[in-house]
Amino acid sequence: MAGLGIGLIGTGYMGKCHALAWNNVSSIFGDVDRPRLVTLAEVNAELAAKKATELGFAKSTGDWRDLLSDPSIDVISVTTPNAFHAEMAIAALEAGKHVWCEKPMAPALADATRMRDAAARSGKVAVMGYNYIQNPMIRHIRRLIDEGAIGAVNHVRVEMDEDFMADPAQPFYWKSEASSGYGALDDFAVHPLSLLFTLFGHVEVVVTDMVKPYETRPLTEGGSRTVENHDIASVLLRLEGGISAALMANRSAWGRKGRIAVQIFGSAGSILFDQERMNEFQLYQASGRPEEQGFRTILAAPHHKPYDRFIPAPGHGLGFNDLKVIECRELIAAIGGDKAHVIGFDDGLRIERSVHAMAQSFAEQRWVTVG
Amino acid sequence: MAGLGIGLIGTGYMGKCHALAWNNVSSIFGDVDRPRLVTLAEVNAELAAKKATELGFAKSTGDWRDLLSDPSIDVISVTTPNAFHAEMAIAALEAGKHVWCEKPMAPALADATRMRDAAARSGKVAVMGYNYIQNPMIRHIRRLIDEGAIGAVNHVRVEMDEDFMADPAQPFYWKSEASSGYGALDDFAVHPLSLLFTLFGHVEVVVTDMVKPYETRPLTEGGSRTVENHDIASVLLRLEGGISAALMANRSAWGRKGRIAVQIFGSAGSILFDQERMNEFQLYQASGRPEEQGFRTILAAPHHKPYDRFIPAPGHGLGFNDLKVIECRELIAAIGGDKAHVIGFDDGLRIERSVHAMAQSFAEQRWVTVG
Amino acid sequence: MAGLGIGLIGTGYMGKCHALAWNNVSSIFGDVDRPRLVTLAEVNAELAAKKATELGFAKSTGDWRDLLSDPSIDVISVTTPNAFHAEMAIAALEAGKHVWCEKPMAPALADATRMRDAAARSGKVAVMGYNYIQNPMIRHIRRLIDEGAIGAVNHVRVEMDEDFMADPAQPFYWKSEASSGYGALDDFAVHPLSLLFTLFGHVEVVVTDMVKPYETRPLTEGGSRTVENHDIASVLLRLEGGISAALMANRSAWGRKGRIAVQIFGSAGSILFDQERMNEFQLYQASGRPEEQGFRTILAAPHHKPYDRFIPAPGHGLGFNDLKVIECRELIAAIGGDKAHVIGFDDGLRIERSVHAMAQSFAEQRWVTVG
Amino acid sequence: MAGLGIGLIGTGYMGKCHALAWNNVSSIFGDVDRPRLVTLAEVNAELAAKKATELGFAKSTGDWRDLLSDPSIDVISVTTPNAFHAEMAIAALEAGKHVWCEKPMAPALADATRMRDAAARSGKVAVMGYNYIQNPMIRHIRRLIDEGAIGAVNHVRVEMDEDFMADPAQPFYWKSEASSGYGALDDFAVHPLSLLFTLFGHVEVVVTDMVKPYETRPLTEGGSRTVENHDIASVLLRLEGGISAALMANRSAWGRKGRIAVQIFGSAGSILFDQERMNEFQLYQASGRPEEQGFRTILAAPHHKPYDRFIPAPGHGLGFNDLKVIECRELIAAIGGDKAHVIGFDDGLRIERSVHAMAQSFAEQRWVTVG
Repeated sequence: MAGLGIGLIGTGYMGKCHALAWNNVSSIFGDVDRPRLVTLAEVNAELAAKKATELGFAKSTGDWRDLLSDPSIDVISVTTPNAFHAEMAIAALEAGKHVWCEKPMAPALADATRMRDAAARSGKVAVMGYNYIQNPMIRHIRRLIDEGAIGAVNHVRVEMDEDFMADPAQPFYWKSEASSGYGALDDFAVHPLSLLFTLFGHVEVVVTDMVKPYETRPLTEGGSRTVENHDIASVLLRLEGGISAALMANRSAWGRKGRIAVQIFGSAGSILFDQERMNEFQLYQASGRPEEQGFRTILAAPHHKPYDRFIPAPGHGLGFNDLKVIECRELIAAIGGDKAHVIGFDDGLRIERSVHAMAQSFAEQRWVTVG
Repeated sequence: MAGLGIGLIGTGYMGKCHALAWNNVSSIFGDVDRPRLVTLAEVNAELAAKKATELGFAKSTGDWRDLLSDPSIDVISVTTPNAFHAEMAIAALEAGKHVWCEKPMAPALADATRMRDAAARSGKVAVMGYNYIQNPMIRHIRRLIDEGAIGAVNHVRVEMDEDFMADPAQPFYWKSEASSGYGALDDFAVHPLSLLFTLFGHVEVVVTDMVKPYETRPLTEGGSRTVENHDIASVLLRLEGGISAALMANRSAWGRKGRIAVQIFGSAGSILFDQERMNEFQLYQASGRPEEQGFRTILAAPHHKPYDRFIPAPGHGLGFNDLKVIECRELIAAIGGDKAHVIGFDDGLRIERSVHAMAQSFAEQRWVTVG
Repeated sequence: MAGLGIGLIGTGYMGKCHALAWNNVSSIFGDVDRPRLVTLAEVNAELAAKKATELGFAKSTGDWRDLLSDPSIDVISVTTPNAFHAEMAIAALEAGKHVWCEKPMAPALADATRMRDAAARSGKVAVMGYNYIQNPMIRHIRRLIDEGAIGAVNHVRVEMDEDFMADPAQPFYWKSEASSGYGALDDFAVHPLSLLFTLFGHVEVVVTDMVKPYETRPLTEGGSRTVENHDIASVLLRLEGGISAALMANRSAWGRKGRIAVQIFGSAGSILFDQERMNEFQLYQASGRPEEQGFRTILAAPHHKPYDRFIPAPGHGLGFNDLKVIECRELIAAIGGDKAHVIGFDDGLRIERSVHAMAQSFAEQRWVTVG
Repeated sequence: MAGLGIGLIGTGYMGKCHALAWNNVSSIFGDVDRPRLVTLAEVNAELAAKKATELGFAKSTGDWRDLLSDPSIDVISVTTPNAFHAEMAIAALEAGKHVWCEKPMAPALADATRMRDAAARSGKVAVMGYNYIQNPMIRHIRRLIDEGAIGAVNHVRVEMDEDFMADPAQPFYWKSEASSGYGALDDFAVHPLSLLFTLFGHVEVVVTDMVKPYETRPLTEGGSRTVENHDIASVLLRLEGGISAALMANRSAWGRKGRIAVQIFGSAGSILFDQERMNEFQLYQASGRPEEQGFRTILAAPHHKPYDRFIPAPGHGLGFNDLKVIECRELIAAIGGDKAHVIGFDDGLRIERSVHAMAQSFAEQRWVTVG
């Protein structure tokens, strides 16, 4: 039987990642028909053709709207810059295609809301690319929480830190413009929010502090320009069910490269995870003889599904790109009508509303309830 | 020449620690006269006599006021429960003795203020027992910050977590009573505040969230009682000079035993420290070839003064009790009129005002300026 | 231009791995023509057809010899059990195909020698599947050693430990038969030997101890059977150039899942690596101020080539399967006549001669020179 | 009741350590009479007097033989350079004193044997200063092994690495002379041997390799001198009961400061320990659900006796010097006729015979049985 027909818009890193996922999902899982990589769209025909060859697509186009009218295409991957997500995703949904859209939905809340509404109207599957939640370690942590392995969770801390904005000598570029968003809170802090949502549910109230480590940044042409958003954000929050949490995001944290550190405290134990060592997590259970209680470092292994589909031996390690293959498999499940572990446009919108509430809290220097 | 004459009130863990410090400071440092351990005071004569023999004091008494009138006593160590600190410290200062008082100063801000005033009037040395700041690792971190090794610091996170209140089955006892304080914020969170003060200066504004992981705790006699304070506190703060910080304290954090984790981010690097591994810290410097940049784990060594006074070889490790010996040496320096690395009653009071401001912020659900 | 034509024999884990590599090498690297996945061979036509669909091959066959006569096939991947390697690899080379063969070459030294000779005669590229050497961390370590970053290396330790034979209750199976090899030394310890060779050159003299942790193992049908080889091997060795080394292999090491721990000591520094955390290594350089010397934990990043071809951001992590894609790219380079980072049949044979010398050393309880 | 009367010979680091231990053992343990620090002996009267004041001894002497005739002295601590141990320890035993002698016994096996014989004849307690075995973590590990927590032990690895000889620019000094011993094997590798003995029993057969990382070292006066012993030693060994072990010692291992890393593999689990993080160990038990098996990091705590005598709270950390206080308490137990956890001259001699057998194995390039 023929597999799903795929259209891809955009070939930046996430575009490549989607292409790899579509290409590998059948080989890895062995239980889905091999997707047909139909058409790749880029900003011009020449680039599109080059990338189609490289990434294994049959056809290419310089006009993404060509994908909408092609009946052999079932799903469209949207991996363009954030400002284009709303237009493309809505058009794809209205054309009867399923949509796999990179996060976040859109810089403006109104656009994100329109995306959510279009998805609801279409009856098609519309999924956000929150790949960190697909890590078998995260999925196992969720299972442990559901099973009560650490009792009732009462407190959570999440830190997301990288250092791509840490150098004060780095010239001003668009990421420091107000039009690109709030800074650390936006396309950065949505990742830890996706984890908090997956493990515990949505955010209810927040209070935020934000900081500019550098007031200005040099311009490549000489002189300097005032930085318009905040590279560091710290938030106290309450989640559904009353769990208290702290969320800290810092994109100018020297030495941190891909840190998403989670600490979960419950009435019977604790769980720790850090994305920089994505193939392990730590579990403390307050049981057994006290003399031997301690945090256990648990390495990813075949019994942490679906690690087994990638490697039959424990401790050998998945990579970041593998998470996208798992996400792809979940998306296919959703399209097939099965229960899937994904974040749809509905929950994606709620995540983005949290971000806007956090920014409002900082602007007004007070606690804010997420709308 | 005769060393300082010492009086000690209290022989709980901190009393033992003070006694060990007075006993070892000369052997360890070799540059101070051996203190004379004159009189130990306890709640009754019998216990006092037993403990004096055990801890090496020449005399003992069941009435702590006996120490005030003894001219051979120069310094009084106050290691009794917090509620007695004010009365004893003030009496000692008024009797012309130097005072070494365990933290915190007093449950009530008014008492702490009276202690500060008595110290100022007396002209004597009055020092708080904030031993974590004496760790050679912390002292070296301060040196690195002063030297600009990580550039201008812009963000700090401190976590203090233990699990002595983590078990919901643990019966209600005085630590859960409102009269004992706010919970995690009090005699617990003052430790990270002492580190923040030592490294960066005082706290200026705060916003706080606090949580009760367990609404009630069982009574040993059956039934249960409502918990009156909060085992978990999270605070966003701004320090002198505008540094943003987050302070998290959790005394019900399963698996954490003596964690005081500090993360310091600067414009040229970062520093990490965790008291659970007190003989090491981590330094990231954004210099040299990028391919080899990384966090360096630096083990305590003789060049981290005064580690060399304890052990001549690197990597062999100091213990928690050794920090008190260093504090003792600093106290003797202060008494001798030298520059000393200690927290006096003045700065101690400011730390406690921060704590009360944090509690007020939670009560009023708003940002509060420290008075 | 058409890419290389690929034939694959075997679809166990390594077969899947080869298929993924052939499928991804163009998408990942973007600088090679997309290979044509021509024919997959398995033990029968039905399995071959199923796997061909799953893994993306155009044709399938139940007779691997069909690959030899197909002119559209340029390279044959041999991923069958070790006992078949010699026959298949030699036939493929004699049919004018390049060969990519999984390690080790063959259980018998005579067969491995015939493979080496066939490769030499054919003039074709014949490469062993030693994927751990492709890790960007290992490649960067080699660069550092070549640059003299840790001075002259004088001592090395390598440990390879897993626990798949650790359970004494695990029934006897073929891995405990003498006919399968010496135990830990064979298809297991060749991995660390591939690293030693890549970094330092070949082994010259050895002395070995081997142990059976369990003398017998239960039979599934009841009763037990004597174990015929050794799950634990420890070897002292001297490498080319006089470096002393210790090699320890234990396939019954509870808790170790994929440990290949390397410690390299030089006159100016040290390097540490462990495959269980394959996206980092540690570097100590005896330079700069002594107070801040320490092991640096360096996370995999785009400047550690070819990590950048997989992920543009540091600290996000490659997976084990990605190493095979790198190996595939190197193989293509070798076929194109470029300098490639691979272990050919020549060096592969030398590695296997080391293994046999180690076993001889144990049998004769003396130091043995590798022939 | 009066405590034991103490004489101390030598005030280098170990002399200071003994003095601290004698000074603290009563305060820490509370269950022994406070020892009387009677007389300190040094090479001349002036130094002796200065040190006696500093370390708290009542009297001092420039002639160590004065201690022998003093009836108020019960125990003599011998902390002088190794070459003096035999003469002093034997004289003390013959004078009816108990002896606490720093390790190793003596450079020459004949002298060590005479010491053992003198101890046997005297009927007095004669104990070696092997303090690492006193670490509560090591004592708990021994308890776990005895209880069968990791099943039957089948393999052990011990590494002892420091870097005080790592710098090739360090001038030649006595530690590189043949008269000082074999190099890494002697006063260095006896520590891991003390751990192996404590946990598993004595060494039976050995095969050794040794290396000189630097053939010559510079002389301070110019020129250079040939190094006469080996800074690196690697040994394969079999212990009592057939356990196989590997012992690696490197005193030129850049970056290692006080590493004594132990890996213990058993039929039901594994244990890891490293002296550089002396307040923790790791335990893997192959029990419970496989998905959550992992190495547990266990922090030192009051239930790891006698940690509780030092600190009532877990995770706060003992220091290296504290181990000597525990050793002192054990020595007092031995003097009191109680079962004590110490290494007497008998077992000390056996440890030194192992060292000589290792050196012989290297000289003769063959397996050697310990005499």
